[in-house]
Amino acid sequence: MSMKAVVFRGPFDIAVEDHPRPKILDPTDAIVRVRYAGICGSELHMYRGHQKTGTRHIMGHEFVGVVEEVGSDVSLFSSGDEVVSIFSAVCMKCWFCRRGLTNRCVQGTAFGTQLLDGGQAEYARVPFADGTLQPVPSDLDRRLLIMMCDIFPTGYYAASQAIQSLKTQSESRLTTLKESVVVCLGCGPVGICAIVTARSKGVGTIFAIDGVVDRLKEAENLGAIPLLLGRDDVKARVLAATENRGADAVIELVGNTSALQSAFELLRPCGVLSSIGFHQGSLPFTGLDCYLKNINAHFGRVPVRTVFHDALQCLRENQAQLKDYITHELPLSEAAVGYHLFEQRKARKVILRVSE
Amino acid sequence: MSMKAVVFRGPFDIAVEDHPRPKILDPTDAIVRVRYAGICGSELHMYRGHQKTGTRHIMGHEFVGVVEEVGSDVSLFSSGDEVVSIFSAVCMKCWFCRRGLTNRCVQGTAFGTQLLDGGQAEYARVPFADGTLQPVPSDLDRRLLIMMCDIFPTGYYAASQAIQSLKTQSESRLTTLKESVVVCLGCGPVGICAIVTARSKGVGTIFAIDGVVDRLKEAENLGAIPLLLGRDDVKARVLAATENRGADAVIELVGNTSALQSAFELLRPCGVLSSIGFHQGSLPFTGLDCYLKNINAHFGRVPVRTVFHDALQCLRENQAQLKDYITHELPLSEAAVGYHLFEQRKARKVILRVSE
Repeated sequence: MSMKAVVFRGPFDIAVEDHPRPKILDPTDAIVRVRYAGICGSELHMYRGHQKTGTRHIMGHEFVGVVEEVGSDVSLFSSGDEVVSIFSAVCMKCWFCRRGLTNRCVQGTAFGTQLLDGGQAEYARVPFADGTLQPVPSDLDRRLLIMMCDIFPTGYYAASQAIQSLKTQSESRLTTLKESVVVCLGCGPVGICAIVTARSKGVGTIFAIDGVVDRLKEAENLGAIPLLLGRDDVKARVLAATENRGADAVIELVGNTSALQSAFELLRPCGVLSSIGFHQGSLPFTGLDCYLKNINAHFGRVPVRTVFHDALQCLRENQAQLKDYITHELPLSEAAVGYHLFEQRKARKVILRVSE
Repeated sequence: MSMKAVVFRGPFDIAVEDHPRPKILDPTDAIVRVRYAGICGSELHMYRGHQKTGTRHIMGHEFVGVVEEVGSDVSLFSSGDEVVSIFSAVCMKCWFCRRGLTNRCVQGTAFGTQLLDGGQAEYARVPFADGTLQPVPSDLDRRLLIMMCDIFPTGYYAASQAIQSLKTQSESRLTTLKESVVVCLGCGPVGICAIVTARSKGVGTIFAIDGVVDRLKEAENLGAIPLLLGRDDVKARVLAATENRGADAVIELVGNTSALQSAFELLRPCGVLSSIGFHQGSLPFTGLDCYLKNINAHFGRVPVRTVFHDALQCLRENQAQLKDYITHELPLSEAAVGYHLFEQRKARKVILRVSE
């Protein structure tokens, strides 16, 4: 049997094609009939050709839907269950998974890659379904649910990590989160989620930094102070708000050397750098810089499975604020248009409607 | 009135000279009559000429003694009190001090520098005495007390920071400290203190890495597994002990690029780097390395004042193990010999006896 699927044919070349429907390969697999699939910012690395990869795989690591079929070892889900999939399969049995470090699952495989077909299709095969799938709460907007696959947990983690690290350092408890100044560097979809989280957890002052006016407008609506790159004197503004100390924490979501350099410069001594951006270059600060600033730094990808529950709670509580978050809902057949709009920054977030 | 003091005359040239006795300059000052002063590893940067500085100041940032005189604004101490001084004066009033970040005191000044004469002398002037001095417990060996000025809190902090960061990351609580593998890179005096702390807090496996056999012997006596640089295959040993994952945390106390590179390589994914070494070079890993390893890193100098109480408790409980720690006790007049022995690594720790 065949189905429609978004296939990667090369940079700037994706197309909806007929593709064989996936089958159960392992007893821990499930097949999910997809309702909505999202286009994620991290797919643009591949789309733009920056991330080298083969072709012909199905795109997409954000998808929600209904369980169609399960393998014999799947015990938590059965046919007909509404589910959300996290962006990377997690075995839940390895040393890392058992300790909550699901971002380092030794069998972890991201959807939408050469190793595992993605969810921008009518059906998707989900390995380790008991770990990779999550049940769907009844009180969350079904379109917003797509945010739980990757971007909301990622933004939630970036902000939470910064906040937790700040909390452990304040021995005297003199600085409350209300008094803290946190910078969010990069206000794309994940940045917006980080801002929602930081606000929700009680951070008093959040600076939102980006070069795109529309993103800053959304950040401002969520309670952040917008600073436009190229127009505002970012450093002067942050210093002015902190008696010249610098920000208590910087959440860095851009993924290039200049962003990391700004993040470092904006931090106060003993501040916290929470870096989620996917960096290619060298670090723009020396060992002496780190020593002299007493920096605390956390790098890398979110353990979605581990933060899922808390992140979902946060998204539920703040869903009203995110009603304008998804700007484009297109049928699966128009996936190429969706990629184009998103790549051109003409859409904040695009989701593809696959089935009812 | 004059006194004897160890004066820095230039690299490899220190001498005991007559020097004017210090006086109260500010109402928050105290004058301490010194009983013991230590020679600290960080003074070797200056002694060897690696750290550029002027000359003629009094050396030493480790000293204990008796309060001789206090300024009018000193309220916690009075003449005759036995005290230990921390290595850097701390105001306890600035934004950082009030939050426990005393390592970043805006008026913080280290003893034994051009800015503030040190404690290798018969008398020392102590700024902000109420913050900089600490009362002396009755149940601690008076010679070991010198360790509380700098090295024990530094080692304590390096280990505690690694342990605390590990604790917050283990969501599932599956890894107890007993099961953790921690590497101590650099086993000079501070490394030994870090090992004592890690053991005391319950870390199960501690690898001690150094190039000096005598240091490793001491580390082994304290329960660590010694690995000699140039002889043992350090990486293979750490991987073998961790099912090829790498160490849960690395405490880095050396302060050069190759040590930092080893530290990074020995860490498991999501591991913790606690770096106390004073680095001059660039960081030997890229942003991508950090991202792909999900690294957590903490850099820089200890807030001695803040950790003092807990560190002292740890030192008290473990003082019997450290009875051989101070290998050389010399009269102040032989300070030059002490520097020479320590620089040549012929002494583990040298203290100078100044008065009764």
